[in-house]
Amino acid sequence: MSLFLCDYAEGAHPAILKKLAETNFEQTYGYGNDEHCRRAKELIKAECEAPDAAVYFLVGGTQTNMTVIAAALRPHQGVISAATGHINVHESGAIEHSGHKVLAYPTPDSKLSAEMVQAIYDEDISNGTRSHTVQPKMVYISVPTEQGAMYDLAELTALSEVCKRCGYYLYADGARIGYGLASEGCDITLSDLARLTDVFYIGGTKVGALFGEAVVITNDKISEDFDYIIKQNGGLLAKGRLLGIQFETLFENGLYYEISKNAITMAMRIKKAFKQAGCDFLIDSNTNQQFPILTKAQYSAFEGRCEFWADMGEGRAAVRFCTSWATTEEALCELEAQIKEYIG
Amino acid sequence: MSLFLCDYAEGAHPAILKKLAETNFEQTYGYGNDEHCRRAKELIKAECEAPDAAVYFLVGGTQTNMTVIAAALRPHQGVISAATGHINVHESGAIEHSGHKVLAYPTPDSKLSAEMVQAIYDEDISNGTRSHTVQPKMVYISVPTEQGAMYDLAELTALSEVCKRCGYYLYADGARIGYGLASEGCDITLSDLARLTDVFYIGGTKVGALFGEAVVITNDKISEDFDYIIKQNGGLLAKGRLLGIQFETLFENGLYYEISKNAITMAMRIKKAFKQAGCDFLIDSNTNQQFPILTKAQYSAFEGRCEFWADMGEGRAAVRFCTSWATTEEALCELEAQIKEYIG
Amino acid sequence: MSLFLCDYAEGAHPAILKKLAETNFEQTYGYGNDEHCRRAKELIKAECEAPDAAVYFLVGGTQTNMTVIAAALRPHQGVISAATGHINVHESGAIEHSGHKVLAYPTPDSKLSAEMVQAIYDEDISNGTRSHTVQPKMVYISVPTEQGAMYDLAELTALSEVCKRCGYYLYADGARIGYGLASEGCDITLSDLARLTDVFYIGGTKVGALFGEAVVITNDKISEDFDYIIKQNGGLLAKGRLLGIQFETLFENGLYYEISKNAITMAMRIKKAFKQAGCDFLIDSNTNQQFPILTKAQYSAFEGRCEFWADMGEGRAAVRFCTSWATTEEALCELEAQIKEYIG
Amino acid sequence: MSLFLCDYAEGAHPAILKKLAETNFEQTYGYGNDEHCRRAKELIKAECEAPDAAVYFLVGGTQTNMTVIAAALRPHQGVISAATGHINVHESGAIEHSGHKVLAYPTPDSKLSAEMVQAIYDEDISNGTRSHTVQPKMVYISVPTEQGAMYDLAELTALSEVCKRCGYYLYADGARIGYGLASEGCDITLSDLARLTDVFYIGGTKVGALFGEAVVITNDKISEDFDYIIKQNGGLLAKGRLLGIQFETLFENGLYYEISKNAITMAMRIKKAFKQAGCDFLIDSNTNQQFPILTKAQYSAFEGRCEFWADMGEGRAAVRFCTSWATTEEALCELEAQIKEYIG
Repeated sequence: MSLFLCDYAEGAHPAILKKLAETNFEQTYGYGNDEHCRRAKELIKAECEAPDAAVYFLVGGTQTNMTVIAAALRPHQGVISAATGHINVHESGAIEHSGHKVLAYPTPDSKLSAEMVQAIYDEDISNGTRSHTVQPKMVYISVPTEQGAMYDLAELTALSEVCKRCGYYLYADGARIGYGLASEGCDITLSDLARLTDVFYIGGTKVGALFGEAVVITNDKISEDFDYIIKQNGGLLAKGRLLGIQFETLFENGLYYEISKNAITMAMRIKKAFKQAGCDFLIDSNTNQQFPILTKAQYSAFEGRCEFWADMGEGRAAVRFCTSWATTEEALCELEAQIKEYIG
Repeated sequence: MSLFLCDYAEGAHPAILKKLAETNFEQTYGYGNDEHCRRAKELIKAECEAPDAAVYFLVGGTQTNMTVIAAALRPHQGVISAATGHINVHESGAIEHSGHKVLAYPTPDSKLSAEMVQAIYDEDISNGTRSHTVQPKMVYISVPTEQGAMYDLAELTALSEVCKRCGYYLYADGARIGYGLASEGCDITLSDLARLTDVFYIGGTKVGALFGEAVVITNDKISEDFDYIIKQNGGLLAKGRLLGIQFETLFENGLYYEISKNAITMAMRIKKAFKQAGCDFLIDSNTNQQFPILTKAQYSAFEGRCEFWADMGEGRAAVRFCTSWATTEEALCELEAQIKEYIG
Repeated sequence: MSLFLCDYAEGAHPAILKKLAETNFEQTYGYGNDEHCRRAKELIKAECEAPDAAVYFLVGGTQTNMTVIAAALRPHQGVISAATGHINVHESGAIEHSGHKVLAYPTPDSKLSAEMVQAIYDEDISNGTRSHTVQPKMVYISVPTEQGAMYDLAELTALSEVCKRCGYYLYADGARIGYGLASEGCDITLSDLARLTDVFYIGGTKVGALFGEAVVITNDKISEDFDYIIKQNGGLLAKGRLLGIQFETLFENGLYYEISKNAITMAMRIKKAFKQAGCDFLIDSNTNQQFPILTKAQYSAFEGRCEFWADMGEGRAAVRFCTSWATTEEALCELEAQIKEYIG
Repeated sequence: MSLFLCDYAEGAHPAILKKLAETNFEQTYGYGNDEHCRRAKELIKAECEAPDAAVYFLVGGTQTNMTVIAAALRPHQGVISAATGHINVHESGAIEHSGHKVLAYPTPDSKLSAEMVQAIYDEDISNGTRSHTVQPKMVYISVPTEQGAMYDLAELTALSEVCKRCGYYLYADGARIGYGLASEGCDITLSDLARLTDVFYIGGTKVGALFGEAVVITNDKISEDFDYIIKQNGGLLAKGRLLGIQFETLFENGLYYEISKNAITMAMRIKKAFKQAGCDFLIDSNTNQQFPILTKAQYSAFEGRCEFWADMGEGRAAVRFCTSWATTEEALCELEAQIKEYIG
């Protein structure tokens, strides 16, 4: 039976494996100084309509977050995050390990708003002993969030504006950005992200690659000596071309968008099935993560195939069903049948 | 023309690519909790004759060094290294970034000896204000070294003994251990390394894998909560199975040893060719790295294909020729011909 | 007019200045290796009934917290604190600077309870991906808290027991411990603190000294190489005897307790005066910090002499009045008169 | 018998104790926001002829070094130091603890020269894989050095110029700057230091104060948010006025210079006495530290009163005799007599 536990359960899109095989015996310089990386960067900059952006390839999400934040902040500065943000809860203290406090704020829906950022700023500057506290300097958002919520253009624009006013960097963690861009109702593009943030990354690991995240930096203060910071954080892949080849493949003919769409189509079918079965949801997500709320009896039918997410009290739990580029029609039909059978 | 710049110029051994393709649509748990990792760990423990060792897979060498050292040391402790050690010169301060001083000592031949370690210990404990200095706690050696020198069993045994006496951990960086084990005159095995060190790693990146290093820890103090330390250092690969699959392939039928041998055969031919041409060498290496000393005119014939290593004065330079599992007969013949042509 | 802004507005108790003058031309070894430090440590160990404790002297509170926590934790471990804890809000990220996350939890009254600690533990160990999160390892409490609340013996005993069960260190920040011990209803002693915690400190800066905090460590795992950790954190005072002389003076004839009592007597009179004037309080404190809630008009009468603490809405604010060993009868009478005049 | 072990064996100059007593019951704001600090800063800026400099007070030398370096460097940057530099050998890894590598270079005489700095720069920029190494960004010099050597104006000017050319900060550790300025042949002033460095500090601990170092920053990039960095490093003294009062006293009527002179007069008599007795010296120092080379038998006569410094082979050792503001005529006469008696 198929798993819906996460969006990194399979290997890579076959086009990537094929390209890796084809290029296997090319001899290239190491550390990303090769033609594949060069070309992949050009494709991404074109997609972002950001010819002056600096693009770097890293292996994974936590590594990317710690590297970007280390590059951007001075020692006494911290990064504002939703309490549910990946950097706050699921990176074993990687951000603190490089010396920075995550300034975590509770949110109703896993998203930070411009109003919240403004309020944090106002409180900070009205503090009589500011230098005794951590100085907020960066706003970290996940697009989409860890709970499947998506930012729209108006929200991103407002966040961008408030960050500029406050002198904060805006950083978007795009581990699942492909699924966000393909989600129903999404009105933003990679170009908007490049224009509205100082730095963001395009996730490969969860969207068709074996591994890899592409960091797009539009603020020179963050990109300065970024290659040193990557190396210092253990993120410089010797055979850097592996990252170049993967992103080249993903962005050559719109493959990234195409395979992201599959995940959304499948996720929307899951959403519909649980809705029809009468389930509530933790949040109303249009992305590849769906969080229906099940009774214990209902959950037991799916245990091991979806992820337990949060105890909702009264014997109920929110669980996560994840789809991906690799989710098959067959797996989905089987799941739909089971939802009908076990839930209603 | 073929490059001899480094041992990570190509992709992976075809058997690895094949296995990746075969397993591509298996659905597995993330983060190394899969059957391939489990099996690869068993194969490595068997090879090391260390059933109780803890084995972990990481992506690259710098990442591995910073993770192992962060796991082993308290904040005031430092790691002893040859001045030429990778952690001292080529990791952009990754060790310092996690708070530890590299206690670097000059060596005649890029190797640390038991006598040197004993002398460092003696000086430390006779210091009247020890707590004003960094406390040595780990000895880092590269096997083979960054200059191609290899430790023999007697040297490793003496280092192991002195470390035990002094209360130091012994850590061997085995980025090129395959080539060391296959080198002429080598009298050590993986089992010796497991027995004589507290922790070491088996390099995959330079020996046939796309990427990957297998850390073997025999000292419980270092392996305790090692998974947290990996995650905190951004080293936990989401699709951990990629590492399991690669090391499974390398250690299933002795492939790791077999492909290492190719590199040595080729390297010895290069050594012979330069010797016959009358060249001196930076050090007498039996491993896959050869450091002939060339005049500027001679070097110009090979520029771009070998690496400039060190200025030797009087218009001469030591350069590095690297072979690997991927070096072909054809490339070698061509190189031999050119050595004859341009040098003598 | 006298200030009630904080408890570090004056110099030191005259007995300390006298002793500093008397000993000024003694020649002693540096870094605390002198007779005054030796004797002060003995006095403190006797007071704590902890002959085997290790006692160290540091200069200030933030320095002490960062040093103790750095000594106790491995990189992936964090320290549990009330959200209002000093380490969480008023140390400019000193704890994160040495790599550790402060695991901050909201509390009703600025105190952590055994139940809260147990719940944190239960949630941690039931987490399926523990190694992706920060590992709780230490519980930090302020005795009394930053809001003047005091722990009683039953609470401390329960905290101590739960920490032992969970494998957590218990650390008490005693920046104002003198005032806590002298507070009405206090049923604990330094001996209880030594017995129930793994490490705590006795504040000098706020209780009669020019500066200085005495760390009492009863857990060998934390005291191991503690002198290195002090030095590494910039906390080793060259003329260490200055700390010895001050704590010698404070603990020679119970001076520490005696001068703490003055602060409490004065604070209780302030409490009574505001109560009689009809004011509410942020919390009901029996220590040297009182937090009456004033209207803006009322606050304006005292502005610059007490500290703004928190906006309470509806035009009201909680403010802080601090007394200390140095608060005089005259200053108090004047304040009482003003409370009557301006408030009621 | 008097000790010549170090220059921090006594308390403070009596004028400082007097001033502390006189001001003891003044109520001031904490953390250096008081009139004494304000006035001391003005006196220092006047002395430095640097009206726009930012002046900060810290407690000790290691603390100052780690704070200045943390404020100045990005994570991948390191600080160039003589191998004998205090930050390299006697700070328990404080610099590495805040993430930075000390790039240590051997020197003939404990001093860095402009030529050495230029060579380091040249090597760095000619490196093909610069981002794999630590980026030099600051030059740390001790004025005078840990071995008593002094920089002259030409040397400092050349260092300043090379640093500007290379884009390096120049930082002078002035723990003993008073003794340097008072030394025979010195042709520099505080004003020169302010003009030629980006940041330096004026040591109080070793020159008449109970404790305290005054940091003078003329480069805005380093002084930006310096108060946060001080607090984060545990260096913000609650009763900051103690530092203000001490430096006010030292710089009010040239006391700092006057008491420094005493140390030099006494040191020159020690130098003369050992010279007349036929001793060699480790280096020819004109400052308050003298390093005669003694035989073991000779050393035994002074053991416990001077510091063992370095084994010179052949049964000889370099030892350190330190004078200070507090060295008395009586102590010196006694020492001179003993030198004559035991040595020659």
